[in-house]
Amino acid sequence: MLDNTILLDVLQGKPVERPPIWIMRQAGRILPEYRALRGSLSGFIELVTTPDLAAEVTIQPVDRLGVDAAIIFSDILVIPECMGLHYEMVEKQGPYFPETIKSEQDIIALDTGMSAASKLTYVFDAVQETKKRLENRVPLIGFSGAPWTLMCYMVEGKGSKTFSKAKSLLYKHPNLAHLLLEKITATVIEYLKLKVKAGVDVVQVFDSWAGVLDRTTYNEFSLPYIKQIINALKDDVPTIAFAKGAYFSLQDIIEIESNAVGLDWTMDVEGIREVFGPDRVLQGNLDPCVLYGSNESIAQRVLEQHELFGKNHIFNLGHGVYPDTPLDNVITFVNSVKDLRH
Amino acid sequence: MLDNTILLDVLQGKPVERPPIWIMRQAGRILPEYRALRGSLSGFIELVTTPDLAAEVTIQPVDRLGVDAAIIFSDILVIPECMGLHYEMVEKQGPYFPETIKSEQDIIALDTGMSAASKLTYVFDAVQETKKRLENRVPLIGFSGAPWTLMCYMVEGKGSKTFSKAKSLLYKHPNLAHLLLEKITATVIEYLKLKVKAGVDVVQVFDSWAGVLDRTTYNEFSLPYIKQIINALKDDVPTIAFAKGAYFSLQDIIEIESNAVGLDWTMDVEGIREVFGPDRVLQGNLDPCVLYGSNESIAQRVLEQHELFGKNHIFNLGHGVYPDTPLDNVITFVNSVKDLRH
Repeated sequence: MLDNTILLDVLQGKPVERPPIWIMRQAGRILPEYRALRGSLSGFIELVTTPDLAAEVTIQPVDRLGVDAAIIFSDILVIPECMGLHYEMVEKQGPYFPETIKSEQDIIALDTGMSAASKLTYVFDAVQETKKRLENRVPLIGFSGAPWTLMCYMVEGKGSKTFSKAKSLLYKHPNLAHLLLEKITATVIEYLKLKVKAGVDVVQVFDSWAGVLDRTTYNEFSLPYIKQIINALKDDVPTIAFAKGAYFSLQDIIEIESNAVGLDWTMDVEGIREVFGPDRVLQGNLDPCVLYGSNESIAQRVLEQHELFGKNHIFNLGHGVYPDTPLDNVITFVNSVKDLRH
Repeated sequence: MLDNTILLDVLQGKPVERPPIWIMRQAGRILPEYRALRGSLSGFIELVTTPDLAAEVTIQPVDRLGVDAAIIFSDILVIPECMGLHYEMVEKQGPYFPETIKSEQDIIALDTGMSAASKLTYVFDAVQETKKRLENRVPLIGFSGAPWTLMCYMVEGKGSKTFSKAKSLLYKHPNLAHLLLEKITATVIEYLKLKVKAGVDVVQVFDSWAGVLDRTTYNEFSLPYIKQIINALKDDVPTIAFAKGAYFSLQDIIEIESNAVGLDWTMDVEGIREVFGPDRVLQGNLDPCVLYGSNESIAQRVLEQHELFGKNHIFNLGHGVYPDTPLDNVITFVNSVKDLRH
C-alpha cells in the first residue's frame, strides 16, 4: 500500500483534503543533483537506457520537491526506436532520426505491437528499480507519446515549427497515415501494458503536437488512437490524457474515457469547467512562466487556480517546467498547493 | 482609381460578387522568379532595404497568381532596427539580434515614435515604387508586427519555442514590459501612418506570437496596444488585425475596431461565426498544409470554407504559405476562389 494516495484518490473520485501536485519534467535540469549526474554522462540516451540512473533521477524530485507522484524518467521516442527507427539526441538541438518514414514500404517495414514493445527492457527494468527505491512513498506514473505526436517525429526526423511534412502525409496519403498510426497505436498499447506489469500506478498519454492540427484533422488522425489506448488501459490503472494546444477539439476530448484530462495554460479555466462540468478531473494548467515571478505572485496564482478549478483537480503546469526556472520558485509552487484545503 | 476593388469593398462592407483572395507570404519562395532574384543577392536584408527589388518581388505574385491584393515585401523587424536594435538574418536559422533588451536602461535608450519610424525611408520608397509599378491594378497592403510579437524578438534576440525570456519579463517586471510595449506602439503607429502616406491602401497588424500567452496576459500586454494602433489608423485606411493562436481571447478581440479579423487554421469556423456574428469581416483560415493535397481536395476545401464563412470573408491561409508548396496548387487555390459566386 502506498503512503501517499492523494493522486490516485482524486483520479478514482475519492474525497481528498487538498489537490495533489506533480510537475511535468520535474525530473530534470531544474534540480542541481540532476545536472550533476547528467554532466557525468555521455548523453541523454545513456540516462534513458540505464535503469539504475533512470531510477535515480526519477526519485530526485520526490526527495527534493515533495511532489505527490514520481514520473518515470524516459523519452517518448523509445517507441519509434523499438519499431525500428533509430534516433539520436543532439545536444542543444533535440532528437534526430537518420532515417525517416518516406513511403508505404517504410511503414510496412516497421515492427509493431508486442514484438516491438517487448524490446524496451531498459524501461521496464527502470520502472521496477524505481518502484523498489520509492518504498511505496508515492505512486509512479508511466507515459507514452500519442500516436500523432510520435508520427510527427518519425516523418520529420526532428522537431519542426510547422510539422508540415507530417501534416502533408495526412492530406496527400491519408490511408498511409492511418496505417502508420495503427502500427504506432498497437505498439503503444503493449508498451504501456508492460509498464503497468512492471509496476507503474498511473499512465499518461502526451499529445505534444496536437496543436498543429485543426478540429477536422485532429478528430480523424489523433483522437481515435488516443481513445484506443485509453480504452485498452483503463481497466488496469487510472489514465490521464493530455492534448497540448487542442482547444479546438475540447468538445470531442470530453469523450475520451480517461480518469483525467490534462490542460495547457492557454485553456481558460472558466470556459473549461463549463465544457467539462464540475466532476471531471482536470490536470494543469499553470503557465510555466508564472514560476519566474515572485514567491507572492506564485502563491497568489495557486489560490486563484484552486478557486477556479475547485475539487477534482490535479495541480501541474500546462507544459514541462522550463530548465532555467529557479528551484526555490518550484518549491514555493509545491508548498503553496500543499497548504490548500478543500 | 483601382481596377480591382474587391478587397477594399469587402473591408468597407460593400456588396461583392465573390470573396477576395490574397495569401500571406505570397511574395516569396513559392515563386521561381523570387528564388531566382533572391539567389542573386547577398541576403534577405538586401532585398528588404532596396526599394526597387522590394517592389519587384511585391508585384511578382500579382502577375503570377492573380491575387486581389499585393502586400509590400518587408520585414516586421525593421521596427526594432529603427528603434536602435540592429538585427541580422542568419540563413536557414532566422533573425538574430547581437544586442537584446535586458534592463530598464536598455529600454530607455531605445528611440521611439516619429524619430525612429522616419528612418525607414527604404520601406516608404519601396511602397511608392510599388504603387507606381502596380498601375492601379490591385490595392497594396502595408503591415506591422504587433508590439508583443516585436517585444518577443527584442528580448529573446531570436526565435524561440517558448519565448520564456520575454514572458518572464511580463511576470517579473510588468512595468518595464509596459514601458517597452508603449515605445514600440508609438513607433508602429508613426511607421504605419508613413506607410499610408507613401501609398498603402490597407494595413494589417500581425501578432505572430499571441499564442504563447494566455487570456489574462494577452489582454493586459498585447490586446490594448493593438487596439491603440488600429484606432490611430482606422480613419486613414481599412485595417486588419491578426492574432495567431489567440483563440483564448476571441471574445476580447471582437472589440478591436479593425475592418477585419484574421484567423489561423486552428480556429473552428462554425464556432467563430457564432462569436463574431455574420457581419464581421473575417480573413483566413485555410491550413497551409491543405495546399499539399490534390487539386480536387483544394477546390473542395475552398467550397466548404465558402459555405461556412459566407459573405464578409477574405480568403487567405491561416499562416504564411510554406515555401515548399507546389506553385500549381497555390494557383488552384486562387482560381477556385475566383470561381465562387455569392
